[in-house]
Amino acid sequence: MSKRIITISREFGAGGHTVGKKVAEELGILFYDQEIIDHAVAETGFSPDFVREAGEYASTTHSFLFNLLLSHSVTAVPGGELSNYDKIYIAQTKTIQDLAEKSPCVIVGRCADYILRERDDVLSVFLHASDEYRQQRILEQYGEIEGKTIGERLEEKDKKRMLYYKHYTDRDWGDVKNYHLTINTAVIPLDMAVRWIVDAVR
Amino acid sequence: MSKRIITISREFGAGGHTVGKKVAEELGILFYDQEIIDHAVAETGFSPDFVREAGEYASTTHSFLFNLLLSHSVTAVPGGELSNYDKIYIAQTKTIQDLAEKSPCVIVGRCADYILRERDDVLSVFLHASDEYRQQRILEQYGEIEGKTIGERLEEKDKKRMLYYKHYTDRDWGDVKNYHLTINTAVIPLDMAVRWIVDAVR
Repeated sequence: MSKRIITISREFGAGGHTVGKKVAEELGILFYDQEIIDHAVAETGFSPDFVREAGEYASTTHSFLFNLLLSHSVTAVPGGELSNYDKIYIAQTKTIQDLAEKSPCVIVGRCADYILRERDDVLSVFLHASDEYRQQRILEQYGEIEGKTIGERLEEKDKKRMLYYKHYTDRDWGDVKNYHLTINTAVIPLDMAVRWIVDAVR
Repeated sequence: MSKRIITISREFGAGGHTVGKKVAEELGILFYDQEIIDHAVAETGFSPDFVREAGEYASTTHSFLFNLLLSHSVTAVPGGELSNYDKIYIAQTKTIQDLAEKSPCVIVGRCADYILRERDDVLSVFLHASDEYRQQRILEQYGEIEGKTIGERLEEKDKKRMLYYKHYTDRDWGDVKNYHLTINTAVIPLDMAVRWIVDAVR
């Protein structure tokens, strides 16, 4: 089965956004990153800022129960409603499923690899790199932030993504078996990563 | 730093031997697999059959203690000698280090990624695939074995490799952070995997 959707999961600073954007350009297909959030926002009515924050926040609902509810389109549980975070995840899930159905595309982050795991037209990629490489890249791309060292920002972001992924998917973030291709971008240049992904899809 | 050594770790049936051999041919460098065992044998004086068996057997020495002994070239411990399994691993370690020092090469299996982890001229690759793909490939490559289903052979071999790797390296086999490149060969054709590895080294 040939691949028409590419999901890119990535450690903070490993170049996932850059690689995903270039792959989409090369293949002439759509690219989703921040856009996914906007779609989810439009459906749920939450403020964009809150949705962005929720995107890396793991709620307290147990993931097994949560996914069971999700698969039955349930949005209220005995004793109360689902949390706003969970509602946003549900909206995100539906958005990503719709986007994948609609046309070939690249989707970066937001558990897209998990959400689309049952489709066989998806190429699932994970990008990671050493702390040193990512710290340097983050400084170049985003500059310094007052009151936080670059090491703290890296650790905080990684931890949030890992917990978010674990919570909603019950899988380990960066587990080799969940990806068709993983690349250490501190060793493999970004343009080579782009070339390989394009190669795999064409 | 450019790469002159390629280590290939692999699940049973995922095509590691085939890919490694082709990469070595394309690059015109040496290929080691069974040969490593023979080298180790020559140094330790054990029978080739026993060395082959030991290559996927985890002894009972604790890996932290074992690696400490190894780093000090100690072969006897208070209360007795190291087990034959551990002695073979030590011989294997030295063999792999020597081979890497001597000339560019491809090394398949035997914890080479771990043994050479401190060199920065090594490209570390992991190949894996779905059970279905590997079962079919094993049948094609090696045929049936009486008294064991293909599923049992797969499970047994995977488990041995995982325990062996865990024992001697104290790392998880197939942990994405230990590799520069991981490829699911059920999805990415073997010749494409060869092309990418060659691409990364050239």
